[in-house]
Amino acid sequence: MTTQAPAVLVLAERRGPVLVLTLNRPERMNAWTDALEDSYFAALDAADGDPEVRAIVVTGAGRGFCAGADMADLQEAATGAIDAERHERRRPRAFPLTVRKPLIAAINGPAVGLGLVEALYCDIRFATPDARLSTTFARRGLIAEYGISWLLPRLVGPSTALDLLLSGRTILGDEALRLRLVDRLSPPGQLVDDAVGYARELAVHSSPWSMATIKAQVRADLERGFAESVAASYELMAAGFLRPDVAEGVQSYLERRPPAFPPLDPRDRTA
Amino acid sequence: MTTQAPAVLVLAERRGPVLVLTLNRPERMNAWTDALEDSYFAALDAADGDPEVRAIVVTGAGRGFCAGADMADLQEAATGAIDAERHERRRPRAFPLTVRKPLIAAINGPAVGLGLVEALYCDIRFATPDARLSTTFARRGLIAEYGISWLLPRLVGPSTALDLLLSGRTILGDEALRLRLVDRLSPPGQLVDDAVGYARELAVHSSPWSMATIKAQVRADLERGFAESVAASYELMAAGFLRPDVAEGVQSYLERRPPAFPPLDPRDRTA
Amino acid sequence: MTTQAPAVLVLAERRGPVLVLTLNRPERMNAWTDALEDSYFAALDAADGDPEVRAIVVTGAGRGFCAGADMADLQEAATGAIDAERHERRRPRAFPLTVRKPLIAAINGPAVGLGLVEALYCDIRFATPDARLSTTFARRGLIAEYGISWLLPRLVGPSTALDLLLSGRTILGDEALRLRLVDRLSPPGQLVDDAVGYARELAVHSSPWSMATIKAQVRADLERGFAESVAASYELMAAGFLRPDVAEGVQSYLERRPPAFPPLDPRDRTA
Repeated sequence: MTTQAPAVLVLAERRGPVLVLTLNRPERMNAWTDALEDSYFAALDAADGDPEVRAIVVTGAGRGFCAGADMADLQEAATGAIDAERHERRRPRAFPLTVRKPLIAAINGPAVGLGLVEALYCDIRFATPDARLSTTFARRGLIAEYGISWLLPRLVGPSTALDLLLSGRTILGDEALRLRLVDRLSPPGQLVDDAVGYARELAVHSSPWSMATIKAQVRADLERGFAESVAASYELMAAGFLRPDVAEGVQSYLERRPPAFPPLDPRDRTA
Repeated sequence: MTTQAPAVLVLAERRGPVLVLTLNRPERMNAWTDALEDSYFAALDAADGDPEVRAIVVTGAGRGFCAGADMADLQEAATGAIDAERHERRRPRAFPLTVRKPLIAAINGPAVGLGLVEALYCDIRFATPDARLSTTFARRGLIAEYGISWLLPRLVGPSTALDLLLSGRTILGDEALRLRLVDRLSPPGQLVDDAVGYARELAVHSSPWSMATIKAQVRADLERGFAESVAASYELMAAGFLRPDVAEGVQSYLERRPPAFPPLDPRDRTA
Repeated sequence: MTTQAPAVLVLAERRGPVLVLTLNRPERMNAWTDALEDSYFAALDAADGDPEVRAIVVTGAGRGFCAGADMADLQEAATGAIDAERHERRRPRAFPLTVRKPLIAAINGPAVGLGLVEALYCDIRFATPDARLSTTFARRGLIAEYGISWLLPRLVGPSTALDLLLSGRTILGDEALRLRLVDRLSPPGQLVDDAVGYARELAVHSSPWSMATIKAQVRADLERGFAESVAASYELMAAGFLRPDVAEGVQSYLERRPPAFPPLDPRDRTA
């Protein structure tokens, strides 16, 4: 009996302070499966706790970013064969939103359905001009899944969100940039390098603690009033003045040298 | 004594699965009256319950979309002559927001004050490059009426909303597209055809149940937190797997043929 | 012992119905201090109560708009030398958001950190194409201060907000316009004139009571549901019909003459 090494579903490569994660089922356009999700979330979790990693880029192997839920899984779901208990033991689907470090999507090709949702869970999106993006759900008789009906109107406004969700139409990177669905375009050969370059700037210039705190602030502030946000900011500001980051941030600025911020403390995790 | 046929205040024309409604007081630039509103809302309500109709386009007869509240009505209101009881019997002004089917505005000319509000109640907006849009309220000593102070900041951001609301200035379709107040521009002679073409795509490719559900999700999600949205989506997803739409959506995709989704059940109305 | 007249930290110049306030520490790029804030807020408060002033423009003296918190203050804060009691006696930092009259920023140069926050507290932003804007906080080890993590995602969407907040990078006016961080660009020599021209349009055409009411509506509506917003609008609409503004707004329109709206009543202040 011949055996085969288990496929590495998510490749991880360190480029200095930036970790590049690559969804790796190229033969299926990186379609999402429970196993892929488990690998990806475990890699994110490890990166979140690794003091050497200051920012994360996620992309897809081969020609696509992620084609969405694997059709086999979808057919299984449609026939009621979902193992609910197994699902309950797993991390919540929106786990990437709770990662404390900057998470940059490098959309190298089709990002469809759940694949698009995963891109939207990232903080910032790079794409190639001809990357194909689609919500797809309405064309499959599905609903707006996994919080996309909450995220998309905040990212692109409710009209564009309804346009993309009701039609399930495919747009290319160019239109996605115009609609603010992605933040930057890069030629295919440069996409990951550009995303890594951006992530490296974050790693070099920005305090890991500041970035983690700001991510939490922005997310919480989408759900609370202005007065609450300001009150919380005063508490965080006071906490910040007890830390080394502010002194180093001011000092390095005055000395015109790069800052040497401490890494994010793994024990600070609030997610 | 000669009598005259009562004016048809809203024209209805079926183009396949798309219903085109035309506000029809061209001699008054389709200025809004209670009677016009009653006709329009009744037509929307009928369309919502008609299994043959899968999407709706609304436009204006003649040179305008809608010039806003009829000045005669406004003067009556300013002199306190409003019949409050009569108003209470009618549908709420924001009734179009509760229509379950896609509602596309084809803004063929001036959309002013309440006329602009009606365009904003639609899911998606097409306009001609020289259509004139204006909130107007502040220039008449009025407030931001009928929820526009809630809708506009979400559609175009609070700065652009304040610019348009404080100034009451008139912008053309070109600027409206840039500001994201409208979603598409079409030449005057093609506007309604383009809006109908878009609506037909929705009718042909997207599940009516999916679209109704997604509209309700997007609207509800503007007022609730992310966790609530995701929890609701899981319930709707489970409900969807008990319906024929998912199976047909997946099957038609695998067979590379157009889907044959069932019409929206008139009894499903939640509005 | 020679004495020097105390510096005028904020210059005030009336241009017809528009008040131009100029932050005036040009030798420090108008960096923010408690004294500057006190002067600015006092000038805003006076303008809010002055029936002759119908709109306000704020800009910076010399080459900058505002370089952010004065570094001396920041170092003091970092060393715990803040006089908390003194802070408590002062107006809240977000006081400009409660001004009832239109507040237009004319960003003539660097707007950094707290300087950018001050620009965001304005209703509408004009900038020169080469004005440099930056959140900066993460590069100094700071958090997103004074409500910027609440305001920025609503103005430019959460992705662009995270891009600007996590990176602390500097963008120029051109990119700021594309990202919707500013609303208009003007050449350096014309910036203030253009902002004043826009403000004068508001002063000439729009009812001061309407503008104050609409500002309060937009702000409140960002934190409440649609039904609440509409209910509030009906009450405000009824209140408006008891005022002279609507009659004058309609009458002047029918007579094709400029309106003569009454000034904002200083006693109406709700802030």
